[in-house]
Amino acid sequence: MYASVLAGGSGTRLWPLSTKAVPKQFLRLTGERTLLQATVDRVAPLVPPDQLYVVTFARYRGLVREQLPALPAMNILAEPAGRGTAASIGLAATLIQARDPEGVMGSFAADHLIADTDGFQAALRLAEEVARQGALVTLGITPTAPETGYGYIQMGAPLAAAGPLTAHAVARFVEKPGLETAREYLQTGQYVWNAGIFIWRADRILAEIQRHVPVIGDVLSEIGAAAARTGGQVTPEVERAIARAWPRLTANVTVDVGVMERADGIVVIPIAVGWNDIGSWPQVAALHPADAHGNVVVGLPAGGYLQERTTDTLIYSATGRRIATAGVSGLIVVDTPEGLLICSKEDAQLVKNLAERG
Amino acid sequence: MYASVLAGGSGTRLWPLSTKAVPKQFLRLTGERTLLQATVDRVAPLVPPDQLYVVTFARYRGLVREQLPALPAMNILAEPAGRGTAASIGLAATLIQARDPEGVMGSFAADHLIADTDGFQAALRLAEEVARQGALVTLGITPTAPETGYGYIQMGAPLAAAGPLTAHAVARFVEKPGLETAREYLQTGQYVWNAGIFIWRADRILAEIQRHVPVIGDVLSEIGAAAARTGGQVTPEVERAIARAWPRLTANVTVDVGVMERADGIVVIPIAVGWNDIGSWPQVAALHPADAHGNVVVGLPAGGYLQERTTDTLIYSATGRRIATAGVSGLIVVDTPEGLLICSKEDAQLVKNLAERG
Repeated sequence: MYASVLAGGSGTRLWPLSTKAVPKQFLRLTGERTLLQATVDRVAPLVPPDQLYVVTFARYRGLVREQLPALPAMNILAEPAGRGTAASIGLAATLIQARDPEGVMGSFAADHLIADTDGFQAALRLAEEVARQGALVTLGITPTAPETGYGYIQMGAPLAAAGPLTAHAVARFVEKPGLETAREYLQTGQYVWNAGIFIWRADRILAEIQRHVPVIGDVLSEIGAAAARTGGQVTPEVERAIARAWPRLTANVTVDVGVMERADGIVVIPIAVGWNDIGSWPQVAALHPADAHGNVVVGLPAGGYLQERTTDTLIYSATGRRIATAGVSGLIVVDTPEGLLICSKEDAQLVKNLAERG
Repeated sequence: MYASVLAGGSGTRLWPLSTKAVPKQFLRLTGERTLLQATVDRVAPLVPPDQLYVVTFARYRGLVREQLPALPAMNILAEPAGRGTAASIGLAATLIQARDPEGVMGSFAADHLIADTDGFQAALRLAEEVARQGALVTLGITPTAPETGYGYIQMGAPLAAAGPLTAHAVARFVEKPGLETAREYLQTGQYVWNAGIFIWRADRILAEIQRHVPVIGDVLSEIGAAAARTGGQVTPEVERAIARAWPRLTANVTVDVGVMERADGIVVIPIAVGWNDIGSWPQVAALHPADAHGNVVVGLPAGGYLQERTTDTLIYSATGRRIATAGVSGLIVVDTPEGLLICSKEDAQLVKNLAERG
């Protein structure tokens, strides 16, 4: 199996820990491995290092090489500009197809956490089997709350099973719902979160991109002609082809909106594996144990944090400087060399705006 | 006129800007002069430098000399331990009496602000005149709000006037009242805040200390014997006398509780001169102009502070690091090399506890 790992995100919702210089996927948020390393570790039993492509930007090439020393340098794809996941995944698919015309690939975000690696790998194996027959497969996350920040996938009839796993036809992809709609989705039991995890044959996704977003298809065909001559290695010739063709992409298109919402015969495998996209600071707080007051302290020694009348607050330090709070509740405090964030948990989504203005 | 300036406070309520190493009185909170320098500037037309005594601790001697280069080194009194304002003021009075048996002295805290210097000096001149005749005089602050953090002084019959100023007999000193009582005090118009500003003859206050707190009186008499031999200079001989006698003081006694609440014939002159004891972070906020959202930013350049949905918040930086807030209101954020404070304005009095634990 092949893989594309999308590692070009800016992670602005975790500013000021995540910065343009070192965004979220390159950070150690839990344990010893960065999110990118954990993503690669998680698929390693199914995807050998030389069959994995990291799609990122030139400015992160050094971080990728440093964090993934086993990855061949020729497997790093640097996009000249971000044009959405349809182009990013299509680029990796183009290289993979040049190397293995019927190769099956998985596509993964580099900045998600999954607690149950075994369960995830079992689902990947079933997905690979289904994808080999030509289906576009997605792993959908069994929802645990009526989240309004994710797209949802409505499941249709069951198609195949493997142990506790079942593959379903997709009835439809739906955009981020309102809270009432999200609650209804949860009650029906028919909906899962779209986590952007896809498994398909490279030739199949390229055909769907060509059909539904021909401007991207044409760019990828031109790059594919160069890739065919290198057997799927990202040589200087391929890089020149990318640099030449890429400027014809002028709009951002996600694979969800551009392809998945329009294609037929999609399959979804629901998974419950402790998935977390760590999409905001309250999710970081939830990864750590809280004290009796509901406070979570990360990065400070005992005595490095003092509080009076403080509850439900995250203190996240990357500097080790002393922090003290009094009379606050539901707050996020993040102290890094980049700067200092103080934000109510309710307004954690506004951090993105602050990061982009900063 | 002579003066004692009390500069031994710890300023814990303005932590982490005010620290044990450099407490509040040695900081520039407004303008170019530190609070200690401003205090000395304010009385300079009435008190020549060599008639002013700074009472502090040995650890602050260097700061005092640095900030007050015109002050003779022999005018710095270092207490071996803090034993309350009765002992501090009495110590200065002992030196002054040794030098000028009927000398009139004012006593001032080193960490208060007064906006109207001319009005303050006019009140001091009237107070000096009254004090020269033997009265214990205090300047009381005309209250602007029903504050519960100050003691109050009830005024009795008017005794003397000078321009817009009137000296009144003191009916009584009262401890910090509850909110309801404070409101009643304001309505009567008979009460002023006790700001700890006193003017009296050195011999008179020493007699009252001897009468009401004889343990302090005895210690001061012993020091006075040495001071008489030096003409009121703080020589090594006087310092040895202080070191020898001071350990007999085992309790803290304020001049308010120990002397003023018990003595008779006290005179109060009410003043309305923009007095501010900067006793907490919300008072610091009030010293600076607020933007349209009620936010006050100190110490950061334009662009150094970013906010979304933030109101009524003080951002005080002594580091220049970028600060961003979102979805908060009524907050105090103080970023200094010592540490980081985040506190609701309502709970600003808890900062003292944090500082003492830190």
